Amino acid sequence: MSRAKTLHAPVPPGGTIGILGGGQLGRMLALAAARLGLKTQVFCDNPASPAFHVCDGHTLGKFEDFGALAGFAAQCDVVTLEFENIPAKSLEHLAELVPVNPRAEALRITQDRLDEKVFVRDAGIGTAVFHVVDIESDFAPALKACGAPSILKTRRFGYDGKGQAKVASESDIARAFARFGRVPCILEGFVPFAFEASVVAARGQDGSFAAFDSPENIHEHHILRRSLVPGRLTIAQNKAAKDIARKIGDALDYVGVFAVELFVMKDGSLLVNEIAPRVHNSGHWTIEACAVSQFEQHIRAVAGWPLGDPARHADAMMENILGEEAASWADYARRPGALHLYGKAEIRAGRKMGHFTQLSPLTRK
Amino acid sequence: MSRAKTLHAPVPPGGTIGILGGGQLGRMLALAAARLGLKTQVFCDNPASPAFHVCDGHTLGKFEDFGALAGFAAQCDVVTLEFENIPAKSLEHLAELVPVNPRAEALRITQDRLDEKVFVRDAGIGTAVFHVVDIESDFAPALKACGAPSILKTRRFGYDGKGQAKVASESDIARAFARFGRVPCILEGFVPFAFEASVVAARGQDGSFAAFDSPENIHEHHILRRSLVPGRLTIAQNKAAKDIARKIGDALDYVGVFAVELFVMKDGSLLVNEIAPRVHNSGHWTIEACAVSQFEQHIRAVAGWPLGDPARHADAMMENILGEEAASWADYARRPGALHLYGKAEIRAGRKMGHFTQLSPLTRK
Repeated sequence: MSRAKTLHAPVPPGGTIGILGGGQLGRMLALAAARLGLKTQVFCDNPASPAFHVCDGHTLGKFEDFGALAGFAAQCDVVTLEFENIPAKSLEHLAELVPVNPRAEALRITQDRLDEKVFVRDAGIGTAVFHVVDIESDFAPALKACGAPSILKTRRFGYDGKGQAKVASESDIARAFARFGRVPCILEGFVPFAFEASVVAARGQDGSFAAFDSPENIHEHHILRRSLVPGRLTIAQNKAAKDIARKIGDALDYVGVFAVELFVMKDGSLLVNEIAPRVHNSGHWTIEACAVSQFEQHIRAVAGWPLGDPARHADAMMENILGEEAASWADYARRPGALHLYGKAEIRAGRKMGHFTQLSPLTRK
Repeated sequence: MSRAKTLHAPVPPGGTIGILGGGQLGRMLALAAARLGLKTQVFCDNPASPAFHVCDGHTLGKFEDFGALAGFAAQCDVVTLEFENIPAKSLEHLAELVPVNPRAEALRITQDRLDEKVFVRDAGIGTAVFHVVDIESDFAPALKACGAPSILKTRRFGYDGKGQAKVASESDIARAFARFGRVPCILEGFVPFAFEASVVAARGQDGSFAAFDSPENIHEHHILRRSLVPGRLTIAQNKAAKDIARKIGDALDYVGVFAVELFVMKDGSLLVNEIAPRVHNSGHWTIEACAVSQFEQHIRAVAGWPLGDPARHADAMMENILGEEAASWADYARRPGALHLYGKAEIRAGRKMGHFTQLSPLTRK
């Protein structure tokens, strides 16, 4: 079934995993790799990268610097990434030197909101109505297709609500389009969802698949505030979410952990919002509630190890610690539960500084 | 109540914990510190130290090298240790430069089997019968006091059954004493225990106390094979174990995590075998079964943070991966549960290479 072209032997303990990106996700990946006796090298363009503190070594370089990337690749048995906006050309360059998981093609699709939506639709999975917005003449047909209100989004480089604007008229679209610098956009119909959810899943290079239980996600100001497992999802919705993830993973011939953000509709059906080709904030609760976390699962997948058991042994609520909230670390430390701080030197408004997970007895498998 | 003379303000996130010793315990301490946004510096005399791979920086130096220790201290907000056989003079030297937890006096007592036994007895807690063996003329009275068979042990530097010999006569004692190089020894009466257990507990610099549930420990060839929680301990024995730990922690004015190895007698009573002034192999299951592991708990205690909740949310069985067993890492990776490998370059017979923890639903608080 697998179309993978870069099958490689498992990276044994003592081998080295390269991680592109040095944020908190890279940091938690490095910590998970260390548990398995694997070394890590981190590549990032930010000298204050939180992941630099917990790895074997790091390269400070631009993601477009092929020379620096080659030097990095020479130190790694396999390379992976913690954020999706790595130039496709850089990944392709790396893939000539060392196995790279997930592969560049999966990244290419999920880096672009239009390609992603088309891909999901072609896989037979529901999404919001959407329409391309490349030039002024797209405004009218897009608004007609998607209705008002709808959301104009840049096709690339958006996260946490950046590069998004709610629009209700052609002049709204024109203003937002100009503000975004007239880059290629997509208009998405407004989805009257009951609540939001996600599914975090892993696919091995042998096509094996393992999905964690699906959390309900609560956002504030476009930023994840908390994830609850099992939340309001029914057993059937939890299963449907995993089925969607399996379809997407297979269709992308994906290797590693990925997340699918979902809208849960009032009629109980699920629509795909977007795909994140990486470990995901809504999966942080797996560190405590599962024997193998999303971070370890990703390391296992990209290293060619057997996937771990995604069963959870507890219910969980994960809450992000944002911006100034991190100044209250001593209060968090007094609460029963698991505190995680990412080692970011500077507190900025809305910045993800850490998270806190509370466990409670398992109420549902 | 506290007699601590080195009270210090909490080390805030971003601060640095110094760890003396770079083995697997130091490695897991460094990983736990990273979760809290703390940096780590590791000092060790072994260039192949597993902890060197996951810390911010390390010093390769001898534990007797005061200059190297001073350079190390200058990089740390507080210093702690992962193994007890650090020269007391080195700890005292460090303590003049930077807060050191646990303090040198607690180490001095637990480094010496005779001082430790006297200390435990004076605290009103049961131990095996014991007698000093410094010179030949001690052989007869020691054997008379302890009976035959009994165990001759060096007073210092023993671990995993090293520096121990079973003896049944004065000539047995003479042979073992000569083999140990005539260093100061202690004879301990043979304890006909039902099974072995331990208690891993933490004490904060404010005198706060938190003990994990007490595991049953199964040894093979003097090396821990597995720990089971709750194992065969009754609720009353679990409580008694914690009471013993609290008494010992208070009497030592201890700051940090320590373990008390216990004999569970056929009549249900508990005797103290020995005290380990550090995180302990029999507490590794806390990584998965508790929101705050023994490693994080130790970091919290020595950093002056509030102690975490030691409640466990699952039953657990921890099994050591010893020597050649580590070659079967791929088989362990396929088993449901949590695999930990310590990143040791070389497999040696009996060497602790990793551990594996299986969780099952909580059967008892």
